[in-house]
Amino acid sequence: MLRLAAPGYLRFSQSNELTATFGGGEANVAVSLANYGIPVDFVTRLPKNDIARACEMDLKSYGVGTDKIVWGGERLGIYFLETGAVSRASKVVYDRAHSAVSEIEKGMVEWEKVFENANWFHWTGITPAISQNAADVCLEAIQKANEMGITVSCDLNYRKNLWNYGKTAGEVMPELVAGTDIVLGNEEDAEKVLGVKPEGVDVTGGEVKGEAYVSVSKQIMEQFPRCKKVITTLRGSINANHNSWSGVLWDGENLYEAPTYQITHIVDRVGGGDSFMGGLIYGLLTYTEDDQKALNFAVAASCLKHTIYGDANLATIAEVEKLMEGDASGRVAR
Amino acid sequence: MLRLAAPGYLRFSQSNELTATFGGGEANVAVSLANYGIPVDFVTRLPKNDIARACEMDLKSYGVGTDKIVWGGERLGIYFLETGAVSRASKVVYDRAHSAVSEIEKGMVEWEKVFENANWFHWTGITPAISQNAADVCLEAIQKANEMGITVSCDLNYRKNLWNYGKTAGEVMPELVAGTDIVLGNEEDAEKVLGVKPEGVDVTGGEVKGEAYVSVSKQIMEQFPRCKKVITTLRGSINANHNSWSGVLWDGENLYEAPTYQITHIVDRVGGGDSFMGGLIYGLLTYTEDDQKALNFAVAASCLKHTIYGDANLATIAEVEKLMEGDASGRVAR
Amino acid sequence: MLRLAAPGYLRFSQSNELTATFGGGEANVAVSLANYGIPVDFVTRLPKNDIARACEMDLKSYGVGTDKIVWGGERLGIYFLETGAVSRASKVVYDRAHSAVSEIEKGMVEWEKVFENANWFHWTGITPAISQNAADVCLEAIQKANEMGITVSCDLNYRKNLWNYGKTAGEVMPELVAGTDIVLGNEEDAEKVLGVKPEGVDVTGGEVKGEAYVSVSKQIMEQFPRCKKVITTLRGSINANHNSWSGVLWDGENLYEAPTYQITHIVDRVGGGDSFMGGLIYGLLTYTEDDQKALNFAVAASCLKHTIYGDANLATIAEVEKLMEGDASGRVAR
Amino acid sequence: MLRLAAPGYLRFSQSNELTATFGGGEANVAVSLANYGIPVDFVTRLPKNDIARACEMDLKSYGVGTDKIVWGGERLGIYFLETGAVSRASKVVYDRAHSAVSEIEKGMVEWEKVFENANWFHWTGITPAISQNAADVCLEAIQKANEMGITVSCDLNYRKNLWNYGKTAGEVMPELVAGTDIVLGNEEDAEKVLGVKPEGVDVTGGEVKGEAYVSVSKQIMEQFPRCKKVITTLRGSINANHNSWSGVLWDGENLYEAPTYQITHIVDRVGGGDSFMGGLIYGLLTYTEDDQKALNFAVAASCLKHTIYGDANLATIAEVEKLMEGDASGRVAR
Amino acid sequence: MLRLAAPGYLRFSQSNELTATFGGGEANVAVSLANYGIPVDFVTRLPKNDIARACEMDLKSYGVGTDKIVWGGERLGIYFLETGAVSRASKVVYDRAHSAVSEIEKGMVEWEKVFENANWFHWTGITPAISQNAADVCLEAIQKANEMGITVSCDLNYRKNLWNYGKTAGEVMPELVAGTDIVLGNEEDAEKVLGVKPEGVDVTGGEVKGEAYVSVSKQIMEQFPRCKKVITTLRGSINANHNSWSGVLWDGENLYEAPTYQITHIVDRVGGGDSFMGGLIYGLLTYTEDDQKALNFAVAASCLKHTIYGDANLATIAEVEKLMEGDASGRVAR
Amino acid sequence: MLRLAAPGYLRFSQSNELTATFGGGEANVAVSLANYGIPVDFVTRLPKNDIARACEMDLKSYGVGTDKIVWGGERLGIYFLETGAVSRASKVVYDRAHSAVSEIEKGMVEWEKVFENANWFHWTGITPAISQNAADVCLEAIQKANEMGITVSCDLNYRKNLWNYGKTAGEVMPELVAGTDIVLGNEEDAEKVLGVKPEGVDVTGGEVKGEAYVSVSKQIMEQFPRCKKVITTLRGSINANHNSWSGVLWDGENLYEAPTYQITHIVDRVGGGDSFMGGLIYGLLTYTEDDQKALNFAVAASCLKHTIYGDANLATIAEVEKLMEGDASGRVAR
Repeated sequence: MLRLAAPGYLRFSQSNELTATFGGGEANVAVSLANYGIPVDFVTRLPKNDIARACEMDLKSYGVGTDKIVWGGERLGIYFLETGAVSRASKVVYDRAHSAVSEIEKGMVEWEKVFENANWFHWTGITPAISQNAADVCLEAIQKANEMGITVSCDLNYRKNLWNYGKTAGEVMPELVAGTDIVLGNEEDAEKVLGVKPEGVDVTGGEVKGEAYVSVSKQIMEQFPRCKKVITTLRGSINANHNSWSGVLWDGENLYEAPTYQITHIVDRVGGGDSFMGGLIYGLLTYTEDDQKALNFAVAASCLKHTIYGDANLATIAEVEKLMEGDASGRVAR
Repeated sequence: MLRLAAPGYLRFSQSNELTATFGGGEANVAVSLANYGIPVDFVTRLPKNDIARACEMDLKSYGVGTDKIVWGGERLGIYFLETGAVSRASKVVYDRAHSAVSEIEKGMVEWEKVFENANWFHWTGITPAISQNAADVCLEAIQKANEMGITVSCDLNYRKNLWNYGKTAGEVMPELVAGTDIVLGNEEDAEKVLGVKPEGVDVTGGEVKGEAYVSVSKQIMEQFPRCKKVITTLRGSINANHNSWSGVLWDGENLYEAPTYQITHIVDRVGGGDSFMGGLIYGLLTYTEDDQKALNFAVAASCLKHTIYGDANLATIAEVEKLMEGDASGRVAR
Repeated sequence: MLRLAAPGYLRFSQSNELTATFGGGEANVAVSLANYGIPVDFVTRLPKNDIARACEMDLKSYGVGTDKIVWGGERLGIYFLETGAVSRASKVVYDRAHSAVSEIEKGMVEWEKVFENANWFHWTGITPAISQNAADVCLEAIQKANEMGITVSCDLNYRKNLWNYGKTAGEVMPELVAGTDIVLGNEEDAEKVLGVKPEGVDVTGGEVKGEAYVSVSKQIMEQFPRCKKVITTLRGSINANHNSWSGVLWDGENLYEAPTYQITHIVDRVGGGDSFMGGLIYGLLTYTEDDQKALNFAVAASCLKHTIYGDANLATIAEVEKLMEGDASGRVAR
Repeated sequence: MLRLAAPGYLRFSQSNELTATFGGGEANVAVSLANYGIPVDFVTRLPKNDIARACEMDLKSYGVGTDKIVWGGERLGIYFLETGAVSRASKVVYDRAHSAVSEIEKGMVEWEKVFENANWFHWTGITPAISQNAADVCLEAIQKANEMGITVSCDLNYRKNLWNYGKTAGEVMPELVAGTDIVLGNEEDAEKVLGVKPEGVDVTGGEVKGEAYVSVSKQIMEQFPRCKKVITTLRGSINANHNSWSGVLWDGENLYEAPTYQITHIVDRVGGGDSFMGGLIYGLLTYTEDDQKALNFAVAASCLKHTIYGDANLATIAEVEKLMEGDASGRVAR
Repeated sequence: MLRLAAPGYLRFSQSNELTATFGGGEANVAVSLANYGIPVDFVTRLPKNDIARACEMDLKSYGVGTDKIVWGGERLGIYFLETGAVSRASKVVYDRAHSAVSEIEKGMVEWEKVFENANWFHWTGITPAISQNAADVCLEAIQKANEMGITVSCDLNYRKNLWNYGKTAGEVMPELVAGTDIVLGNEEDAEKVLGVKPEGVDVTGGEVKGEAYVSVSKQIMEQFPRCKKVITTLRGSINANHNSWSGVLWDGENLYEAPTYQITHIVDRVGGGDSFMGGLIYGLLTYTEDDQKALNFAVAASCLKHTIYGDANLATIAEVEKLMEGDASGRVAR
Repeated sequence: MLRLAAPGYLRFSQSNELTATFGGGEANVAVSLANYGIPVDFVTRLPKNDIARACEMDLKSYGVGTDKIVWGGERLGIYFLETGAVSRASKVVYDRAHSAVSEIEKGMVEWEKVFENANWFHWTGITPAISQNAADVCLEAIQKANEMGITVSCDLNYRKNLWNYGKTAGEVMPELVAGTDIVLGNEEDAEKVLGVKPEGVDVTGGEVKGEAYVSVSKQIMEQFPRCKKVITTLRGSINANHNSWSGVLWDGENLYEAPTYQITHIVDRVGGGDSFMGGLIYGLLTYTEDDQKALNFAVAASCLKHTIYGDANLATIAEVEKLMEGDASGRVAR
């Protein structure tokens, strides 16, 4: 997906230059993983034009495999981004209707071949939100992954402005989540997508308490027996420049809580959740017996994402580990 | 329509900055006229989002009336532009499918009200190329304009990459041209849109001879009895930076030929035809008895457009007249 | 007026690019009002050159009427802006001497015609500071407005570097304020312009207490019997990036106090007062019986201005209302 | 003087970025000379503000002495530049009225001290065009230079838009030229400033013939007996991007003609004449017995100036000499 | 290698922004081939730092294999580029001393493994120019390639400013060329590197005649019996913006001559020879029985390179073929 | 030294534009002093190329004398800078190996002549870190300065990534410090360079207590009897955007402590220590009997440096004094 952002804090009407980068939920996770040295492929459908080819080049530069991309369709999805400041919120104008991936059809991707040497499949709630076709293909993939014994993870990623092809998230998502092993979301996702609601938490501003999410996690695991871990990202929106950030992981028995970071001078908040997921998959693959460490890696990685421009997290393992070890001083390395 | 251009001569894959301006056939003509002090309204359909509102602000800055715009639909049409050099051609990637105007419907524009104090209606062959709906509304407008005795002009403007909703230009355009008083086009348009072909002219490179177009003009006027003037733009593509530029006007009796300009260092060639049309309408309205002068104004105006960045022609009347009078020296005015 | 700003936090000597926007006290208020959908005209004098015409185009893009501008004179006023950070103050270098508006003369503007369908006239203390001529024409306008029963508002707007044509603000302003119904200022304005001084308030840093300004407001209303409301903006300058911001309104009987906002990451502080005035006029026109709400709108609107680049406030009514309702979280809208 | 140029070929109304450089007739000559290693001071009057200080820093970076600048006055002169292309001319909007140097007064510069170790004084026709004061001080300087036996050169530099303080160039300039040893100008300057007219030369376009200027030179030397050399720059304006360029020198006995250069892709034409003068002074000082070589250096140097952005000529002696020797191939040096 | 170019036509001292791209003789050929869909690896030595990693990302984005790069050493080579115009030549400031590749040592690259599935090895005269070590490793590679029956090509690429480690090109190159099957060069290379000199050709300006190079080619093939084809690039430097461009190929029996292109508005001339080589290798691999067509592809491809910014040729096969077929009109594709 | 910085908070791999400025420990101090009006020369060795000449021009623009620079050698040292945010640290990639100054040799600088009218010599620990040659010349200079009775100051400036020519700072620096009168450093410098360690101070984050450094200062003065003052900069790294900043001065008898500033929105932290030194030298020269004031000037000056882009401190004396007097409000000056 092409992201076109007004530079700095300019409003859309103020700039005749737009900064073009590429992003999107699943792509961002793929870049994170490639960046940590994990072999990864991005599977999508792109139109045969120069803009989409530039998108593919971008993915290749990060080391993301692009051989499994299906080429065809009318257009590349676009979103326009205006970055807010203090009490002025950032604005996203979606222009994703009729994108190549929204018109993907079952059978276009040879999932069996795609999954041949894979051991993990990740999807997000954005894909089924785009169109019935995309939702169908997403289900097709999840079912094949389940069949082949591949771990499936998802980020619920509720976007109210996207669900407009006639079905609600609540109607479509449960069948997909049912085939998923690892579920990531925030408080709003759980409520809007799965109808599960935390208690006593004010999501608009200030600090949020992780403990309150155990009940949410439990409800999800009951509803979806395949699910082994529920991870909740905790964002406190002090203002557009200053967020607090943390996360909790429930494995059915224990609640792991990560430290809370104060991100006082956000550079780019978009892709924060995706970088959490990228960090989490890396963490779960790397610290196989240590969910606390995997969670800490995910939170630290995504904390660093907020300091990096664009959708993609370009923080290195060394930087994430330094932050995990407690050094948040930002002292110059020289 | 939003135009997103890679800066300078960069290829799409080379730049992460895109220059955003607004344009489109009819809008460009409207800006030309407003710039010459002619009261003008731009009638289209735009979606209710910040990108379209920025487009409206741009039109207002030039003095184009925007009160008659109909608001609704999914998206603003986009085209991506990569500027060529020497023997490398410029590239246009259209992303106009499903734009608000392509999904316009008959009855959405109150043409009677729109035309209340108007005496001229201009349309281009791009609109009916986009969708059946747009073609229908275009016909609706032409018929109402004919009914109300308003002069109708069109620019045939053949774009092969746009005609893909199942009909060809040849099937759709004749009915529209039939209601038109003033027809502008180049050699390719006449052939592809109306099946009328000039003789003995090589359109790929070098100078072209205006005389050969009398036969084309005559054929058009026979086919479409309402048509009073046929104007042909004459572009010689020496290379992407150097074009020759002229035009001829046939009024059914005489062929008026304008001088030929050598545009040796093109700044921006897009919108050249639209600026010709803008200059022509101004010329016909201003030099009411002097088609030669009207034509000369059109050619000089559009020659200057090639030196101005963006779709819109911002040359002033004084600059056009100076060039018409023969001063092409480009000497600094100070 | 042309504003030429060094980009980012660069000093004048560091940049060979200057960002050109247009602004000025009254123009900024006009843009605010146009932006809220209030029909508004900007009345000034501009020289007949391309720079001033670009300024007019900018105003038109926002929907501000420019038909009443008087054309003539030598030059467009300029100010150079260098943006400070933390404890380094922003710098303004004025280059307004001999601007077209400073050499305006009585009779040049046909005020009776200008005011024909108007019901509000706003002026600022910057105009009479520029030249005796400008002061004279300002008085001429106020008197005509009074005569025609039009509400008059002013922003005292003291600028010590501007008053250098031989008279002090204290000598010129009272006669103008005498014809004014709504007076806006801050503590410094009241003291320097009208000789009225609050007590026990440290204006250099930290939070300021609104209550102390009742005495100031009362003194103003006694001195100027026409005055119906005195509004005071309350800025606490923690540092160049972080200000607190609020305001109080005294209607002769009650003191209305707005909430105080912490603007922790200022984008552009210039035009803050003008956006307050724009919000206030909108508020007083809209919430006709509710001064508290009008004040709250003004404070929230101008709080948002600090997050927007340039002199003009481009915050929407929806954004202002969201902040008025207490949502200062800056969460992404998507 | 501050030059504010719209970038690339953008019109004033198209850009919200202006490129700021410093320039002006005499300053440009000073930079040329400093660049060739000739010790040189720039004498002017600048206001005490940060913009003028940045101008001083710029001069210092080139090695131009700034100790003799007189500080005071209201403002730094400005000119706005829009760069033309092909048949669209560049535009200059002067904003020099009331600049510090225009309000300079006799006695402000201690010319005797300034000239202490000097052997050359250069002035241009722009200075007396600005104001009576500037003309008076210019005369004061010339007279002192004459008194102290310092060579005086001038560039007639006629600018019709500047002469508007009530006197014409023809009234003011002769007295100044009378004290001048070396006079540079083009055909237009000679006519507008001194009333001397060449014959049979079309200045608007195409090639010009040097021979026709002997008569002009002779007339000047008769009118001004102090004058020892008259140099004429020969510009053929094919279009805004392509000029031919040469010059002739008349020493009272012989006409020296330089080769004519085709400058087919002009980068920046402003300051072309100044760079000619800079090259000429260098040439006359260096090739003391060889006026042909001095002229050739001047023409080659200023030919190269057309390939350099900004007012100042940054071509090196080596580059000028390479071109003088006939290598105009522009082959990469590596 | 990192290329740092002053933007536009600015001199080094004029810009505080440098445009960073990556390039270098062999890398440019690799990008060309990858761009045509030929599997290709770039073999070099890069230091372990973020700048070199960005270089690797750039190569990966084009699809060039980077797995065979050897990591180590002190620094990445740099060159600074200032782009000339008209008669002002471009300037290259090399800063390649002590680059990682200049300190490469025999044995560091496992050539046997590198060449495992390869059938072509290309090297350029720049590598042995850098250091004795680089020359040694280059020889090591050529010998292994010869041993394994891999086609070896080279571009003589003489750079006088690089040969400064104590040996001349004439001392080092012959041994390397002796192992080479396909030799590319221009007239200057042949003379400076191999001591072979064409007759009657003026290389500084104007058109050059291909025929004169048969004798040069013959001499090379006699001197180096392994050599099967000698290709000469023919550049006519009209000026820095306008070159003519062609090439000839001698296969021991016939001289194939390509058409000559007039490149009238060069965008970026650096990498022109490399893009010729890239096109030639593609051509020889694709049109296996048709050297004329291979040559024509190489000349057309590199003609297009001159219209593309940066060292790398991003012209597509379709664009090259269109030009080969004679369409140099640069008409917009839409 | 050339500094090439990725713009804004972009990572190296994200930007193809690098912002080029010049800097380096001693140069930064020189610019600070020149900026305060103190006559100062920068002594170094620069290669004869255009990049180094641009560096010289930059120094001249600030008024730093460049006549004593020795020209020769291979290259100008470079460092690449990536600016961190919040918990992501800034990164410096040094590319200084083999710079002209690192290959300087004893005898190249005529120190006796350089020091002729000087009364102060400043060096930093960066110079001896680069190479044995640079260390030798540094010692040569210190010894000559001692001989001629010139005050010598140094900034210990430990950079672990620079010391890689085979000796440690601990081996080289003591002999140099022994000839030094005024020693500046922070806690890390003292430990790594001189083996002197403060107690009970956590240097990674938060506030640091000045008192703890008395012991360090005493140890230094005992070890180096020539040393008259030890100054310690106190930086608390809350995060990459927010530092606290202060300093203490020990004169052998008293500890002077400066106020601590909260720099909450850092613009550019590089050169902070150099600006402290520049301020300190100015302070000691100006407030000759008042070490407290000299220290306060140094701390306030360097506090302001953090708000200025680039290595050099461009804060004016007036700005520093305003901050010293307690006004940290950053209110607009207009």
